[in-house]
Amino acid sequence: MMDWLSLFTEMATAIRKEVRPLFGTAKAQETRGRGAGGDVAHSVDTAAEDVVIGRLESEHIPCILVSEEAGTRRINGGGTDHVVLDPIDGTTNAVRYIPFSSTSMAHATGPLLRDVDVGLVMDLYSGMLFTAKKDAGACLDGSRVSTSRVVDLGEAMISLELTYPKRVRVLTQTLLPLMERTLKLRHLGSTALEIAYVASGALDAFVDLRGLTRSVDLAAASLIAREAGGVVVTPNGEELDMELKATARTSLIASGNSLLIAKILELLKNGTDTTLI
Amino acid sequence: MMDWLSLFTEMATAIRKEVRPLFGTAKAQETRGRGAGGDVAHSVDTAAEDVVIGRLESEHIPCILVSEEAGTRRINGGGTDHVVLDPIDGTTNAVRYIPFSSTSMAHATGPLLRDVDVGLVMDLYSGMLFTAKKDAGACLDGSRVSTSRVVDLGEAMISLELTYPKRVRVLTQTLLPLMERTLKLRHLGSTALEIAYVASGALDAFVDLRGLTRSVDLAAASLIAREAGGVVVTPNGEELDMELKATARTSLIASGNSLLIAKILELLKNGTDTTLI
Repeated sequence: MMDWLSLFTEMATAIRKEVRPLFGTAKAQETRGRGAGGDVAHSVDTAAEDVVIGRLESEHIPCILVSEEAGTRRINGGGTDHVVLDPIDGTTNAVRYIPFSSTSMAHATGPLLRDVDVGLVMDLYSGMLFTAKKDAGACLDGSRVSTSRVVDLGEAMISLELTYPKRVRVLTQTLLPLMERTLKLRHLGSTALEIAYVASGALDAFVDLRGLTRSVDLAAASLIAREAGGVVVTPNGEELDMELKATARTSLIASGNSLLIAKILELLKNGTDTTLI
Repeated sequence: MMDWLSLFTEMATAIRKEVRPLFGTAKAQETRGRGAGGDVAHSVDTAAEDVVIGRLESEHIPCILVSEEAGTRRINGGGTDHVVLDPIDGTTNAVRYIPFSSTSMAHATGPLLRDVDVGLVMDLYSGMLFTAKKDAGACLDGSRVSTSRVVDLGEAMISLELTYPKRVRVLTQTLLPLMERTLKLRHLGSTALEIAYVASGALDAFVDLRGLTRSVDLAAASLIAREAGGVVVTPNGEELDMELKATARTSLIASGNSLLIAKILELLKNGTDTTLI
C-alpha cells in the first residue's frame, strides 16, 4: 500500500529546496498567466507544481491530480486516488519575502473533501511540518499536537481573511461583532498555514467569509485541524464538505473547539448583512 | 566614539539566543504583571530586557534607557545618550509560535524621535536584521535596501493594525475607503517588524490609527524606513515626531514613498468618522 505521507514529505522537502532560495527575488515575481484556480501564477508556483507532477509521473503513481495551477489531471492513467495540491499557498507573501507561505498536499480516496485521509502542510520558510492521517491524530514536526482550549473570545487570537476589495464593506459589517469581542486579530495571508495554526493552537480560530477559498487551499489543513481536535465548518455551522476541484470555492470557519465556534457563529449571525455568509 | 550599531547587533543576537528556544513553550507564556508601557509583560520580555540592561551595566556604558518594561532608567549615571528598547515586539506572536516577532533598539542623541541616529530591528525567528544609521541608508542583513515604488493602491500590500476591540467599529469605518482600494491586506502583529518590512519593500505601507503605538515600538524602525526612502507620518500628514518615553503613544502611517502616502491620507480623510485620527 502506498505510503502517501512519506511521499508528500519528500515532495514538500523537494519543493522547499527548489523555491525557498527564490523568495524575495525578481525571478519569483515573474508571472505565468492564470492557473486553473483563477489566480495569477508566479514562476515559483509552477516550479513547485512541476516538482510534484515530475515525481508522480517518474514513479509511475496513477492518480487524479487536483492542483491550483494545472487543474484536474489524470496522471499515469488516473484511478481513484486523488492528490490535492496547492504548490504554494501564500505566494504573494513568498515573493515579497514575508515569512508566511506553505505548500499543501492531501490524499483522498474519492472526489470529496470528506474523502481526504492524509494531509501535509509545510511552512516553506521555516520548514515546520504539519501532518495528519485520518483517525490517527495530527503532528507538528512529528510530535502530536492538539487545538486550543480557549473558549472565551476575550482570550482568543483569531485570523480573519479581509482581502476582498469589492465587498470588504459588507464583509467587515458582518465581522464587526466578532472583531469587537476578540482579544487579538490577525490577517496572515496563507489559508493552509492559518488553518494548520488552528491545529497546533497557535491561532484559536480562522474565519474566511469571502466564499473564495478553494478546495486545494484547505484539503490538507482541514484534515489536520480536525485530527488535532478542531472544527471546520461552513458559516451556517455545517461540517465543511466540498468537491475537490481547483475551481470549487467556499467560505469556512476553523476553530480549536466547538464551544468557541458556537460563539463565533452566533456573533456572525448578528452582523448587519448576512447575505455574505 | 561608541559604535552603537555593533553593540546593538551583539545584544540582539544575545537576546535571540536567549529567547528563541522559549517561543511556543509554556515558559514563554508566564506573565510578570504590566511593564512601564502598560502591556502585560511575559517572562520572555523581561529575559530579553535583562540581556540589554546587564550588558550596558557591565560594560559601564552611561545612558538613559527607555524600555517597554523598565520605563526610563539612568544606567551608569545616565548622560545624553538615549537607548530606546522594545525587548520583544510581537510577544503574543512569539509565545504562540507565530513567526512575526522582533527585538528593536535605537540610539538617540536627545529625548525626541527626531534625535534617533541608529536603529536596529531583528526578526527573532529567522534572525533577519534590519539596520540604519542616520544619513547613511538602511540595510537588510548588511545589504542596502530601498522601499517600494508602488504608487497604485491596486498593486499594494498594506498592513493594517486592527486589534482594538473597544473602537474597532470606528477604526474600520475610517479604514474602509482604503480597504476597498488596496490589492492585499495584512495584519501581522509586530509593529517594529511591519515598519521594517516597509523599509525593505516587502510591504508597501503600514497603517495604525489606534493612537496606541509606543515610541519604543517605532523608534528604530521609523529611522530604518526613512533611511530606505520611506515616509513615516501622523494621520494628518506631518512627519512623525514624539517623546522617547515608554508611555508616549501615537498613530502612524509608514509608506514606501510620498505618492502612495498622499493617496492613503486622502482616503482616510474620507472615512466616515475622522475623530479617531
